[in-house]
Amino acid sequence: MPEAGNKKRIAIFGSTGSIGTQALDVIRLHADMLEVEILTAFTNDDLLIAQALEFIPNAVVIGDEKKYEKVKAALSGKNIKVFCGETALEEVAEFDTYDIMLAAIVGFAGLMPTIKAIKKGKVIALANKETLVVAGDIVMQMALEYKAPIIPVDSEHSAIFQCLVGEARNPIEKIILTASGGPFLGKKPNFLVNVKRSHALQHPNWSMGAKISIDSATLMNKGLEMIEAKWLFNLQPSQIEIVIHRESIIHSMVQFEDGSIKAQMGLPDMKLPIQYALGFPKRIKNDFPRLDFKKYPTFNFEAPDVKTFRNLAIATEALHMGGNAGCVLNAANEIAVWAFLNNLIGFLDITAVIEKAMASVQFIKQPTLQEYLDSDAEARNFAASLIKI
Amino acid sequence: MPEAGNKKRIAIFGSTGSIGTQALDVIRLHADMLEVEILTAFTNDDLLIAQALEFIPNAVVIGDEKKYEKVKAALSGKNIKVFCGETALEEVAEFDTYDIMLAAIVGFAGLMPTIKAIKKGKVIALANKETLVVAGDIVMQMALEYKAPIIPVDSEHSAIFQCLVGEARNPIEKIILTASGGPFLGKKPNFLVNVKRSHALQHPNWSMGAKISIDSATLMNKGLEMIEAKWLFNLQPSQIEIVIHRESIIHSMVQFEDGSIKAQMGLPDMKLPIQYALGFPKRIKNDFPRLDFKKYPTFNFEAPDVKTFRNLAIATEALHMGGNAGCVLNAANEIAVWAFLNNLIGFLDITAVIEKAMASVQFIKQPTLQEYLDSDAEARNFAASLIKI
Repeated sequence: MPEAGNKKRIAIFGSTGSIGTQALDVIRLHADMLEVEILTAFTNDDLLIAQALEFIPNAVVIGDEKKYEKVKAALSGKNIKVFCGETALEEVAEFDTYDIMLAAIVGFAGLMPTIKAIKKGKVIALANKETLVVAGDIVMQMALEYKAPIIPVDSEHSAIFQCLVGEARNPIEKIILTASGGPFLGKKPNFLVNVKRSHALQHPNWSMGAKISIDSATLMNKGLEMIEAKWLFNLQPSQIEIVIHRESIIHSMVQFEDGSIKAQMGLPDMKLPIQYALGFPKRIKNDFPRLDFKKYPTFNFEAPDVKTFRNLAIATEALHMGGNAGCVLNAANEIAVWAFLNNLIGFLDITAVIEKAMASVQFIKQPTLQEYLDSDAEARNFAASLIKI
Repeated sequence: MPEAGNKKRIAIFGSTGSIGTQALDVIRLHADMLEVEILTAFTNDDLLIAQALEFIPNAVVIGDEKKYEKVKAALSGKNIKVFCGETALEEVAEFDTYDIMLAAIVGFAGLMPTIKAIKKGKVIALANKETLVVAGDIVMQMALEYKAPIIPVDSEHSAIFQCLVGEARNPIEKIILTASGGPFLGKKPNFLVNVKRSHALQHPNWSMGAKISIDSATLMNKGLEMIEAKWLFNLQPSQIEIVIHRESIIHSMVQFEDGSIKAQMGLPDMKLPIQYALGFPKRIKNDFPRLDFKKYPTFNFEAPDVKTFRNLAIATEALHMGGNAGCVLNAANEIAVWAFLNNLIGFLDITAVIEKAMASVQFIKQPTLQEYLDSDAEARNFAASLIKI
């Protein structure tokens, strides 16, 4: 943690994605409190260069090694260290010169750098839910051991985290994760079978990256969030409930053992949970638009349709199974969503791919980290073989 | 505060009213943690006797001196001290033998005993909102000086208090007090002019005493709550907003300076905030009915109709005026509601009486306690003279 009066030094892993760019918006607004120490991107060299030229971090990493020379040249003379490749990602995660890692790399690729940062006792602002979905038991145990606070950035988990502040001695009875229902709320399989990429990417409330937008459309996002929540808040599967709340104003809720429910609310704007995680425990004053009840005169709640949106049913099963089930679920889903985004399979095929992968990969009750990595690879290969890529 | 492992000893001031009897329901359920030390009632001797025989407190007070002998006789041989009259109420408030005063006497009469308890540094579970409406500046200053924690029992203020736990270093941007709207939500003056006592007592969501039920029907209750909130949470009038939420599930909300809103929710059941205040900081596990979103699929929000429910507009004016305005407002309202409950005036006359009293009694910017008491008496006398009682 930074000393009083010092700025918090932020390492943004995945700075060119939706979360990364919004985090930079937040840091730009609060340059008196926050500063950029590390930026990393996978392929978007142009944006990474522009970000680095604006924020002058200590180091940048471009994942794609072919783009190293271009980035290096563009930043020469700026006193910015430039690295490339996956190994560099893990190495800069171990730097002593930052305080908070914003873990915003999409998918399984975010796992290893996050583990490195945890082992250095960094504060982890966790936007990469796969870290916990894949290997939640190991990651949370490690965070405890290395005293690395994990502050969720997902709006739902941020909501729950905020509701739990000051309630450490009061056990959770259950959490209620709200879900917008995505763009296809109320639709049935005969509609979903014909859904196209462009349609599935149109989320009604949130502005997000492509992968998470598709996951929202299939409700897999909510399934992954259940598994993430189980690890983050040390819950039993039975303590996690999903409620569809199409307005996305209540971001999630906690019910305590006295029956009292606390909810965190606001306009759907990812900058808010990002800023909360970077500023925690301080809420940083801002002039983001405020909720106006005149514009939201009604909040609606309904049960999710898990018969139509079967991904949520499968994820719930994985939640109950534990072990490597979440890891396999996530790996197969990543491949299936990638295939859907590339017009290789249909919307309902996503579920079919995941189901088959879950049935194919051997269940392991208490995997080692290596076994998680192996399960991930096996599930990806199997899913890819189904799609014939 | 009790030592670890000891039971908290509760003094219930106003034990035969709605809050008092529900508090005893709570204590009965949690006899391992809570015990009754003092019970007081104004006139309901039979219920006070029954309560004393069940809970065997150290002392009871019956306000009505004519009923002293009956209570004394009924409790003889039980090792229960029996007192009567207003002075006794203030004396037992100073007893060393209890930890928490549940201040549940209705109206202005609750003020002096509460002040005595504050001066003894007791924890005050405050159900009597008039204590703060009448003399909030003096009472809160006193609570600070004598280190007497004030924990609100009103469901709205309890909600805000719960939302503020763990947020001490984060300033409040505004609070949003929810209001059910009462039994006449959506009605206009031409309807209200003919409203009868029995109709006005039928609150759609909450089971409460007669005085507060009428105040809910006129929206004066929300007005008094605004003034109460101003003192409890050290707010400017502009930081207090009212939203009509007819389902009474969200009990109130806090918006912080980052735009994030926290809400406390649950079924409308006063036992919950009573238990929270008695158990604080621990939430006591219970099996009260839980909120089920299937039964509440919609939350509605709308602005209050202050043209029809003018009491709320007058109370808002008193909130902004400060000084003795809240005291005068409250005194005139108590008389007017009493007169309405006794069929002496009509529903809309309540507002007329309060307005005239506000215009008649001299405004004092920074009253002493004695000036508050005088303003109260003057407003009562003036209001009574209007009603010709």
